[in-house]
Amino acid sequence: MASMVDGLSINLATIREQCGFAEAVDLCLKHGITSIAPWRDQVARIGIDEAARIIHQNGIKLTGLCRGGFFPAASAADRQSAIDDNRRAIDEAAALGADCLVLVVGGLAGGSKNIEDAREMVRDGIAATLPHARASGVPLAIEPLHPMYAADRSCVNTLGKALDMCETLGEGVGVAIDVYHVWWDPDLAREIARAGREQRILAHHICDWLVPTRDMLTDRGMMGDGVIDLKGIRRMVEVSGFHGAQEVEIFSAENWWKRPADEVIRTCVERFHDCCRI
Amino acid sequence: MASMVDGLSINLATIREQCGFAEAVDLCLKHGITSIAPWRDQVARIGIDEAARIIHQNGIKLTGLCRGGFFPAASAADRQSAIDDNRRAIDEAAALGADCLVLVVGGLAGGSKNIEDAREMVRDGIAATLPHARASGVPLAIEPLHPMYAADRSCVNTLGKALDMCETLGEGVGVAIDVYHVWWDPDLAREIARAGREQRILAHHICDWLVPTRDMLTDRGMMGDGVIDLKGIRRMVEVSGFHGAQEVEIFSAENWWKRPADEVIRTCVERFHDCCRI
Repeated sequence: MASMVDGLSINLATIREQCGFAEAVDLCLKHGITSIAPWRDQVARIGIDEAARIIHQNGIKLTGLCRGGFFPAASAADRQSAIDDNRRAIDEAAALGADCLVLVVGGLAGGSKNIEDAREMVRDGIAATLPHARASGVPLAIEPLHPMYAADRSCVNTLGKALDMCETLGEGVGVAIDVYHVWWDPDLAREIARAGREQRILAHHICDWLVPTRDMLTDRGMMGDGVIDLKGIRRMVEVSGFHGAQEVEIFSAENWWKRPADEVIRTCVERFHDCCRI
Repeated sequence: MASMVDGLSINLATIREQCGFAEAVDLCLKHGITSIAPWRDQVARIGIDEAARIIHQNGIKLTGLCRGGFFPAASAADRQSAIDDNRRAIDEAAALGADCLVLVVGGLAGGSKNIEDAREMVRDGIAATLPHARASGVPLAIEPLHPMYAADRSCVNTLGKALDMCETLGEGVGVAIDVYHVWWDPDLAREIARAGREQRILAHHICDWLVPTRDMLTDRGMMGDGVIDLKGIRRMVEVSGFHGAQEVEIFSAENWWKRPADEVIRTCVERFHDCCRI
């Protein structure tokens, strides 16, 4: 079993409707999986000390903590409170020993139609957060999100622009490459190669794009059920020099969130083996 | 009234649930609008000769005919039949005197996960169609579609890549810039400027991006109800040298398609005046 799951991490959003943090860890361990990525609310519900205890006691590795970000806001006070919250997220990531803090950077500031302004607020927000991240030894992972989330979740919509932002910001920041968000990008091969060359890849998330997609937020597919060339993208990622885990992150209100968690994780393991690993 | 609608065109999809071709034209004329863009099925229902008669008799201008495209397919026979259908669409556009034939180029070929292959099939398909388009005097307008349609509708997802394709293909092909598909693009300003410089802009479509968007296909917003900087984009388009009409194209199953067509068109006129014209 151990070989089946080597290089596999489970983002706990994948079973968030079925399991709390402790049950999710137990289930992963049962399947031989020792890499996970929890969300802050999942950690908060059992308390960070208890989460840290479970992690350390079981030799669990965190491929990331989800999530910081959401920097753009109409008022300076709200932008500051976003920065404060990101600092707390960094503290939590440090306490849990996470490989990175994943940033969903935020969309348009409330009432604004100016996406370039939003991008500037994101740059400024990360810059203000970065000294604390560096001091805490927690890399920040900008996750470029699919353009369909540009208005309300992330104004950084391509890997190329995320990497441009990393260049401006300097050390301590990189990217989380989620196939769901980037698979369509005509510049994907070039930008993954660049991300590797510039040593910016902090995480590689997987799931699949279903046709049709019935909901913009919660209709992600299990690997192999959609149209993404998962092995092709993994090949680009590995050739570029990143050999970290592939982290399964599936939001699926009508399908996987309704199935027993054990079936979900078993399917993740099978599909990881059949469709993702190279 | 005439000045209110100067530079406004109505894509007849906007009232497709309420009106046939003849009623739609009457309604536009009632509002002083003399530019429209019909769909092939709307034309087919009354017959192309009758449609042409109505158009010519009323001095109607067609800012485009929707639509050709859908080139990728698994078999050579299916690819050929797509090319044949595009040739018929060109004949229809010529018969109606349309400014261009809009191409929604198609997504992945059936069963394929290779989006670069699909892009190659699109290039080949347009190349095979282009001699007939040139001979007929009908420019082909590649419409880059939002990346959320990459799998099933269009593997050409940015204005930049559409322009690259135009460069490869040569004369007789350009782009339709629909704000809904391109507003999020960090390279938008640069690529609109390039499109103008290279004289590739054939159409400018407008509507709005709603937050939240409840359906990926049929939840487009009326101008002013969403987050798109419509005047900002129009400014880029005009500065680049295109002064053709702004064509309203709204797919809205739960809202505008359920309202009386007269109310829809009246609202288009008002919002065009308030939110779009510069």
